[in-house]
Amino acid sequence: MSLQPSEPAGTGSAGTKAAVNVAPAPDTVTTGPIFGSRKVYAAPKSHPHLRVPFREIALSDPKEPAVRVYDPSGPYTEDDARIDLRQGLPSIREGWIAGRGFSPVAGRAVRPEDNGNLPEDRVVEACPAHRTLRAARDGQMATQYEFARAGLITEEMVYVAHRENLAREAAVAGAAATLADGNSFGAALPEFVTPEFVRSEIALGRAIIPANINHPEVEPMAIGRNFLVKVNANIGNSAVTSGAAEEVEKLVWAIRWGADTVMDLSTGRNIHNIRSWIIRNSPVPIGTVPIYQALEKVGGDPVKLDWEVFKDTLIEQAEQGVDYFTIHAGVRLHHVPLTARRVTGIVSRGGSMMARWCLAHHKESFLYERFDEICDLMRRYDVSFSLGDGLRPGALADANDAAQFGELETLGELTKVAWAKGCQVMIEGPGHVPMHKIKVNMEKQLAECGEAPFYTLGPLTTDIAPGYDHITSGIGAAMIGWFGTAMLCYVTPKEHLGLPDRDDVKTGVITYRIAAHAADLAKGHPAAQMRDDALSRARFDFRWEDQFNLSLDPDTARRYHDETLPKDAHKVAHFCSMCGPKFCSMQITQDLRREAEAMLGMEEKSKEFMDAGGKLYVPAAE
Amino acid sequence: MSLQPSEPAGTGSAGTKAAVNVAPAPDTVTTGPIFGSRKVYAAPKSHPHLRVPFREIALSDPKEPAVRVYDPSGPYTEDDARIDLRQGLPSIREGWIAGRGFSPVAGRAVRPEDNGNLPEDRVVEACPAHRTLRAARDGQMATQYEFARAGLITEEMVYVAHRENLAREAAVAGAAATLADGNSFGAALPEFVTPEFVRSEIALGRAIIPANINHPEVEPMAIGRNFLVKVNANIGNSAVTSGAAEEVEKLVWAIRWGADTVMDLSTGRNIHNIRSWIIRNSPVPIGTVPIYQALEKVGGDPVKLDWEVFKDTLIEQAEQGVDYFTIHAGVRLHHVPLTARRVTGIVSRGGSMMARWCLAHHKESFLYERFDEICDLMRRYDVSFSLGDGLRPGALADANDAAQFGELETLGELTKVAWAKGCQVMIEGPGHVPMHKIKVNMEKQLAECGEAPFYTLGPLTTDIAPGYDHITSGIGAAMIGWFGTAMLCYVTPKEHLGLPDRDDVKTGVITYRIAAHAADLAKGHPAAQMRDDALSRARFDFRWEDQFNLSLDPDTARRYHDETLPKDAHKVAHFCSMCGPKFCSMQITQDLRREAEAMLGMEEKSKEFMDAGGKLYVPAAE
Repeated sequence: MSLQPSEPAGTGSAGTKAAVNVAPAPDTVTTGPIFGSRKVYAAPKSHPHLRVPFREIALSDPKEPAVRVYDPSGPYTEDDARIDLRQGLPSIREGWIAGRGFSPVAGRAVRPEDNGNLPEDRVVEACPAHRTLRAARDGQMATQYEFARAGLITEEMVYVAHRENLAREAAVAGAAATLADGNSFGAALPEFVTPEFVRSEIALGRAIIPANINHPEVEPMAIGRNFLVKVNANIGNSAVTSGAAEEVEKLVWAIRWGADTVMDLSTGRNIHNIRSWIIRNSPVPIGTVPIYQALEKVGGDPVKLDWEVFKDTLIEQAEQGVDYFTIHAGVRLHHVPLTARRVTGIVSRGGSMMARWCLAHHKESFLYERFDEICDLMRRYDVSFSLGDGLRPGALADANDAAQFGELETLGELTKVAWAKGCQVMIEGPGHVPMHKIKVNMEKQLAECGEAPFYTLGPLTTDIAPGYDHITSGIGAAMIGWFGTAMLCYVTPKEHLGLPDRDDVKTGVITYRIAAHAADLAKGHPAAQMRDDALSRARFDFRWEDQFNLSLDPDTARRYHDETLPKDAHKVAHFCSMCGPKFCSMQITQDLRREAEAMLGMEEKSKEFMDAGGKLYVPAAE
Repeated sequence: MSLQPSEPAGTGSAGTKAAVNVAPAPDTVTTGPIFGSRKVYAAPKSHPHLRVPFREIALSDPKEPAVRVYDPSGPYTEDDARIDLRQGLPSIREGWIAGRGFSPVAGRAVRPEDNGNLPEDRVVEACPAHRTLRAARDGQMATQYEFARAGLITEEMVYVAHRENLAREAAVAGAAATLADGNSFGAALPEFVTPEFVRSEIALGRAIIPANINHPEVEPMAIGRNFLVKVNANIGNSAVTSGAAEEVEKLVWAIRWGADTVMDLSTGRNIHNIRSWIIRNSPVPIGTVPIYQALEKVGGDPVKLDWEVFKDTLIEQAEQGVDYFTIHAGVRLHHVPLTARRVTGIVSRGGSMMARWCLAHHKESFLYERFDEICDLMRRYDVSFSLGDGLRPGALADANDAAQFGELETLGELTKVAWAKGCQVMIEGPGHVPMHKIKVNMEKQLAECGEAPFYTLGPLTTDIAPGYDHITSGIGAAMIGWFGTAMLCYVTPKEHLGLPDRDDVKTGVITYRIAAHAADLAKGHPAAQMRDDALSRARFDFRWEDQFNLSLDPDTARRYHDETLPKDAHKVAHFCSMCGPKFCSMQITQDLRREAEAMLGMEEKSKEFMDAGGKLYVPAAE
């Protein structure tokens, strides 16, 4: 794995000297498996050529089957990962896409403003990996939605079905299916995910597979209420330009810990070329907010934005392979006054830009007015919509107000337009919302937007804990995920305070994996509890290593344990330092259970209990 | 503030040398206000002699009133805190208790087994602070419950009423009252808390004021569904004996960040004498699990426990001033077989001891059989019951099972017995429970236990995140707090892995303050959102210092901000490093709002909006 320092175009042999001006960047990214896991690839019988990735956790007890978990981390976590950032990841979708008959296109020429009008010697080299650039013709099917509506099952749908099933084949036959006693609030989680089920969900607009035809490296994944709850992590370089490998490392780090998609919210110089490194090296869908780059192109003044520069930016990013665009077309002129008395006004960057634009020109938003054209453009590349919530509440006091719900109604209207145009759509939501106002957000979104997938930030359930907003929002995220949100946008501990560092990103992703998993459990996902059960059995059996390896973050679990009991012998000890050996309830219970096994009375009582149904979950009356 | 190294009894001048054998301990504890706050004392008009503590956060904008928050941290956070651990805290309740006519009693003599039969030269000195030891006679009213039932309003009730109101006097007249649009699931939060309301809640058994008549230092607080949600932190020395000041510091540290009560779960040597330091220096109610010490007295074998040693321990701890006892009287013989097929068996330490005892003797639990006597004993000191959930689930797979709910039914039966005996009672609950199974826990507890306050651990909403169980459980805690749980027992990041250190305790307390506050907001507590609104206004106005100071952890918020923008000038900057100056939505909105103010159309639209009710929360239809 290597990334050479950029050799600026046109500087000839002066290149290496000129590179001094470029921010020094590491030329490697994190590779290798998560401790205790190994990457495996599997295929459904019908499609033996597919290589669907999973992470497999082998356990030390021979009676315990290995646990297979969903794995968005890409080839980086292979045992012998061979990564060359200049080559990009393998184009696993190339054959599928090529088979769909798209015309290669020349593409838009890169312009100086794409990289912030930097002098040539400060432009970071673009990723040199070559890909065939494609676009659909008018009338040619291009999106997963169009294929699904036409009754066609794509390779992406087959891949997603196998990926979502985890070990569900076994679960259907075994005990796990009986554990699915959740409340899904009207979702329709299947016992087993078939390719036809995936097609049907996409055709109904209830799920999307964000996968630009110019992002052949993506490992297809689904976002929808009837699939596993997904997590998005944001990365970005803010105002200071980082090096390309540094940005790729942010991506690799986020997906290592479980981010299912990554939004690149970069706003600085070199934005175009750094994006090329990210996309060519990303196995997960990449989302962007194109208006951020459009703003750069007009010198930072939202009033100067116009359709031409925005359209140009959409084409630029669609050709690069961005999988979904946040489009703030729901912020309309008449919504703006509704924010006047808010405690925190408009807190979405895109939303505030569009509000400014509407008010300055006293005109309807050009995103709204040109929405048909935006759809036509995005359809050609199968870029999915993430309809932006420009008026999301930034304080509890502003939650569920007329501005927020007014915009949501507009997003519902736009969803139907995008579907009619053949596009895939998800809808952005929440922000700061107290617990008792969360559920109505989900209900209203389902009703207004025809069950298009909901994608929410948090929500943060209180405003008073900056520094801990991964937690204030993790509470809300778990709840809204349970109620039906398909993807949760993470919040890090630095929210409201500064740029997250590496540790913050990891904390944010793990917190949101907790929220997403808690939601899957509560919805009654048929396979979700298998991992919990395996970990709890390991815990009760004092298989410490298994407990660590089954956890969301084996490194931290092991480190915390070892702070007080570092010796290898303690990894099989029948106690931990929390209670010590004499007060370990699990040890007492194990002793007790052994005694009980020998006691006829206990055996008989157990038998009665088992005869009465033997279920762990029984009605409350004894 | 000072704590001299212990001078062991009977060693004369060899004392200082002998002290070498005692674990070295700091002789100070943390004092001084939380950054940006100051301690204030206030009194209701009717009782001008009371000194009810609050923490007041002054704001930099002269138009913004200071925000007064609930403050359990005691005198330690006074500006010029003068703490002498050897003297203990001021006995603020001494006059009230003395006025109730209790007889001074000689008390039980301390025995070698109380401190683990340590050789004399290794016994930590007991806290030398002298207090009059009291006990009620038969037939003499002693508990807050008895006073309340008799229609008497105690000083504790007056104190609690004023404490719970915060700035609620203002809120009733002002805007905050209209914000109380929560869903309290049948709770009856008043607009304003009167002493009579407190009395009535206690008389109904719906709230308790844990306050042993031998703990005159306690600042009275209420635990009940119609009061602010409270947080408990556990401290303890596990198997390794720490020094006395070190243990007091754990208490001081936990209440500094917001713990409302503290349970001392110590199990090692010197347990009696260290407890004396903790109680004499605690402004919050102290809870214990007496069976832990009883087990020490019988050499660690639960089978050897009996009524005599248990009763002796109750008297010992009640005389010391413990405010509430966890009593695992709900674990009955016939429940034990119900745990046989559980994934993690019995995970409560007390529960597993009693199960072991029942099974070994094949007899009904002596705690259950002697429950009347336990009540009579605890009533004499007004030690409140915390009826232990010895069969709480330790894994999602065991949640809400027959063992757990069978025990809860027994706890309901015991609640009525304890009330009939004049005792105050709360009920312990959850453990590991997925989100969709939380609500029924609350509903069943309310129904079975006659609305006695519920006090739950978490619940943890997934098993798969050791190292992050403050978060897995913070999600469940916020939800069950919303549903009606009166006090949340914190969980630290080290849960399942080891003993929490100082940072873990702080993280656990802050996480649970978030959960409790999120619950207060969702229940519609009339004053809860005032702090959120004040912080959000500070955020929108770029008053960074005010934002930090209003947060639950000003130190961390400030530190995170300063990592990227350390200069003083940045404390008034109209951006932060998350988005940078050009992309700050709040700055754009402020600009926009200024422009809007000058625009007639906007003004008029605003006016229409205000004329239509001017509420921030309006029906969804535009």
